[in-house]
Amino acid sequence: MFTHRIRVRYAEIDGQGVVFNAHWLTYFDDTCTRFMETLGFGPEFWTVEFDVMLVRAELQWTGSARFDEWVDVAVAPVRLGTTSFDLRYQASVAGRPTCDATITYVAVEPGHNTSIEIPAKVRAALQAQIP
Amino acid sequence: MFTHRIRVRYAEIDGQGVVFNAHWLTYFDDTCTRFMETLGFGPEFWTVEFDVMLVRAELQWTGSARFDEWVDVAVAPVRLGTTSFDLRYQASVAGRPTCDATITYVAVEPGHNTSIEIPAKVRAALQAQIP
Amino acid sequence: MFTHRIRVRYAEIDGQGVVFNAHWLTYFDDTCTRFMETLGFGPEFWTVEFDVMLVRAELQWTGSARFDEWVDVAVAPVRLGTTSFDLRYQASVAGRPTCDATITYVAVEPGHNTSIEIPAKVRAALQAQIP
Amino acid sequence: MFTHRIRVRYAEIDGQGVVFNAHWLTYFDDTCTRFMETLGFGPEFWTVEFDVMLVRAELQWTGSARFDEWVDVAVAPVRLGTTSFDLRYQASVAGRPTCDATITYVAVEPGHNTSIEIPAKVRAALQAQIP
Repeated sequence: MFTHRIRVRYAEIDGQGVVFNAHWLTYFDDTCTRFMETLGFGPEFWTVEFDVMLVRAELQWTGSARFDEWVDVAVAPVRLGTTSFDLRYQASVAGRPTCDATITYVAVEPGHNTSIEIPAKVRAALQAQIP
Repeated sequence: MFTHRIRVRYAEIDGQGVVFNAHWLTYFDDTCTRFMETLGFGPEFWTVEFDVMLVRAELQWTGSARFDEWVDVAVAPVRLGTTSFDLRYQASVAGRPTCDATITYVAVEPGHNTSIEIPAKVRAALQAQIP
Repeated sequence: MFTHRIRVRYAEIDGQGVVFNAHWLTYFDDTCTRFMETLGFGPEFWTVEFDVMLVRAELQWTGSARFDEWVDVAVAPVRLGTTSFDLRYQASVAGRPTCDATITYVAVEPGHNTSIEIPAKVRAALQAQIP
Repeated sequence: MFTHRIRVRYAEIDGQGVVFNAHWLTYFDDTCTRFMETLGFGPEFWTVEFDVMLVRAELQWTGSARFDEWVDVAVAPVRLGTTSFDLRYQASVAGRPTCDATITYVAVEPGHNTSIEIPAKVRAALQAQIP
């Protein structure tokens, strides 16, 4: 499974000394970018052929991450619809689970935010990654 | 129902021209702070008697918010357990729904992040707000 | 002098228990938006007639702000050139100075980030606000 | 000169399609952390022996960075006082300068934010890095 490593910045730590909750969505967003890039869809693709918007996100925290720790975020598609798909994220620090999420993305036309069908080549690439 | 108004900052807009997904969790966090304050639990309370950590969050987007728009976030408790409770958030812009969320908070000892029972006065205050 | 009030969010506090340094630039950006709006230049103006980019910022911290405190940010123009101008920000918490800044903005064509002359009506409005 | 590479996240892009101004301070903060680590002062050091707070920052933008670009941030000490020191940052994208900054840090006692003398071993390590 594709895994992206993120190092916790001091700016991301809150008064409790742990990564502030909202930043986990940013970590998953960053992981999505890297995951799609390994499938052949880099930044130039997003603005021309295909973009996504979030329609649903479900997060569960089982631990926390602290300043300067490495967070490993594993990601894989778990559902593939006509216009939307789900990615499953599992974040851990040194093997200790911290936050899991399932995020539903809807395919949109770049610059217009209107729903489109997932392009065939994206569909094929995601299909091949379903565990 | 208690409603908190937040004005979208330019810093919160992403390349799609809408509020970046993670900031909705920040908006809900800010709303939680204001909601608890109206119940009598201001910032000095959080560091001494009672703190919370997120264990679960479920968000659904039905619209987006743009630069400088006012976001109204209504909030109410919808579940009250022994050590955890759920708040339900409903965000809208000019009456148009944008993002809803149910967030589960676990009560923790301030400074230690260890689970405790919800203090009686917090429980009573939240109970009175369940719709 | 125009003053904008910002309440410190929990998300903005770092491990030292104070507003993380970068957020002061966000506070000043938010203040700039509100200041320009009082001069008659709301969000619709920025995308059509005139936009700005930062070319220089000088910040000095003499104090810090904590969770839930109100930060008052006073702002006024202090220099007005042909294509750029300086705004001076003075932030305080309950009268106690926390952070001052002088920020130089260059006028740009919306959507193109190319330098233009400051439009006459913006120039006149800023000129009238110089202390 | 020590250089830290940062990849621009989608969350860091604003409505102009470039890294929002405040995030440059976050990039420099992240670079400071990595720089100090190479000198032997990792995260455990900051909370026990020595911490810093910003007292002054001067930033100059000569370009911008876009989504997914790699930002190279070179850093070196340029002044070393008794209780404070300056780091000079030079950020570029593919050799093209984007943002430079000089930041003055004051040494503080961890957890108390009270000024202290720069510890001898930190002073020696920084001294050796002055260009």
